Amino acid sequence: MNKLGKIIKLNSCPKIESAASVVGTKEMQGPLSEYFDLSHTDERFGAKTYEQAESEMVRMAFEISIKKAKINNGDIELALGGDLQNQCTAQSFGLVTEKIPYIGLYGACSNMAEGLMLSSILVDSGHFRRVSCSTSSHFAASERQFRFPLEYGCQRTPTSQNTVTGAGTFIVSNNCDSKIYVNEVLPGIITDMGVKDANNMGAAMAGAAVDTLERYFTSSDMKPEDFDMIITGDLGYEGSEILKEIAAVVNIKLGKNYYDCGNLIYDRESQDVHSGGSGCGCSAVVLASYIMDLFENNKIKDVLFIGTGALLSPGSVLQRLSIPGIAHLVRISREG
Amino acid sequence: MNKLGKIIKLNSCPKIESAASVVGTKEMQGPLSEYFDLSHTDERFGAKTYEQAESEMVRMAFEISIKKAKINNGDIELALGGDLQNQCTAQSFGLVTEKIPYIGLYGACSNMAEGLMLSSILVDSGHFRRVSCSTSSHFAASERQFRFPLEYGCQRTPTSQNTVTGAGTFIVSNNCDSKIYVNEVLPGIITDMGVKDANNMGAAMAGAAVDTLERYFTSSDMKPEDFDMIITGDLGYEGSEILKEIAAVVNIKLGKNYYDCGNLIYDRESQDVHSGGSGCGCSAVVLASYIMDLFENNKIKDVLFIGTGALLSPGSVLQRLSIPGIAHLVRISREG
Repeated sequence: MNKLGKIIKLNSCPKIESAASVVGTKEMQGPLSEYFDLSHTDERFGAKTYEQAESEMVRMAFEISIKKAKINNGDIELALGGDLQNQCTAQSFGLVTEKIPYIGLYGACSNMAEGLMLSSILVDSGHFRRVSCSTSSHFAASERQFRFPLEYGCQRTPTSQNTVTGAGTFIVSNNCDSKIYVNEVLPGIITDMGVKDANNMGAAMAGAAVDTLERYFTSSDMKPEDFDMIITGDLGYEGSEILKEIAAVVNIKLGKNYYDCGNLIYDRESQDVHSGGSGCGCSAVVLASYIMDLFENNKIKDVLFIGTGALLSPGSVLQRLSIPGIAHLVRISREG
Repeated sequence: MNKLGKIIKLNSCPKIESAASVVGTKEMQGPLSEYFDLSHTDERFGAKTYEQAESEMVRMAFEISIKKAKINNGDIELALGGDLQNQCTAQSFGLVTEKIPYIGLYGACSNMAEGLMLSSILVDSGHFRRVSCSTSSHFAASERQFRFPLEYGCQRTPTSQNTVTGAGTFIVSNNCDSKIYVNEVLPGIITDMGVKDANNMGAAMAGAAVDTLERYFTSSDMKPEDFDMIITGDLGYEGSEILKEIAAVVNIKLGKNYYDCGNLIYDRESQDVHSGGSGCGCSAVVLASYIMDLFENNKIKDVLFIGTGALLSPGSVLQRLSIPGIAHLVRISREG
């Protein structure tokens, strides 16, 4: 095999049966509010702590996704999930009551792409008829884990991003009549750009996104302009500009069809979000709401979704290690 | 589908092409020392910190596994990996230099079973010819993350276990002449026994292991005595006794063919390990060394390996949440 990795063509076209999004109050004040399934006036979602609030959001997104698909939780043969909390506890506690087979993932903010990619391969393998994948993040839980508790009132740097409070679930199935399907996937390669600034994760992840895009377009007959949308996960304003610059160096011209979920989710002018949105929840809820709506209304037919993740930990940052990035690619298409 | 989950029969019999184990000094003083591939006289493995030592062990185990298989790193089409460190950084930093497609997993101490299960399904799917899976843990890194830094000199409770310093890698392939293959797998269901004592994780995980065994034997024609070995991951002395008791309640009689990697890896009399070994590295290095040696020398032909994981975090313990467990089953068999 060459060093490009292999684009995995999913011959059985695993369908996206349903998608659900649950978000916090700030996300509901943003431009995509009409597309989300559920929000809460309380950032704690009725739970005692922010971490448990995130689990509650995971549970809600999962429940909404099975209601939308008109199935029961027992119809899900396997649940995939992962998040940013230490030891991915948002998923473990959020899904414990469902009593279904579970496989934990860790892809940092690329989790939605990683989950969709694996769900689609598993359904395509014929071993599973229906697999769910879910992820989440919570602004307050992330701030206290990765930076400082909100109560400290720390000033944020201009390149810092706002972790999205949100949870998303997708159900991938070969047993439904959805027109939207996963066409191809390409797993990411860990890429270290040498960035050490934990407040500039867009820059740390941009290199991984370009690596994946370059490997995709080198092995594929498609060109960037062939897609209705090319969407990265959470590079934010800073990271997506860096992406466009370094993509151009390897002759990938990203034009007006290029978007980043971190730029789409908030209104930069009126919301105090610095360099945009981030976190596992960012791409999860944008994809599960706005992008799925465009697909359902036949406004788009072919999309490249590149979930981006920064593989750091608070400990690795304190030990002054650089921040490796990863970017998994999922091509989502619509029939007819 | 019923609530049992489905045993996944891998019709193409994905082969275990090679397995590698790298361990610390305490593991080399134990009864399995002759089976391990590599150790180091320094628990830091030449690195600056314990966390980076774990990454170095991951890199070494990966490199040994490809040398044993007589292939290059580029022959691995996909690497799966996960560990106990916050944000699974042992794998990210350990595998960053390999430059191969990577998917991060999180199954706590069940990671080796989770990785073997997924690798086998992915190879069986026909989309990959060769997938590696790796995991690791480091005693000192785990103590400081989950309990207290070693320098505090805390006294350990009798039911506490000793996190194994070790890294293991398996290569699963449909492109080799190995006689050892993955026969069936069964993903675990998150099971909450209500145990809240982070120093008694064997008890927290025993319920998940029984759940998986019960689902397996209910859906299979096999009986416990049909296997040469039934091996749990890291229940330790306390947890494996609890397992035997509650398994008997659901009519699963675990006899002399039942083992636990946490009991096998250390000598209880001479090594100060309280309730035995634990951590992702525990089942990984025991399986990759001793068990694979028994297979290669035709002393065993059919084994049930049940990787056990406690899905806690230091934060969830401080918030007084219980510790959910999970147990993934992998049936490994030998032809001829």
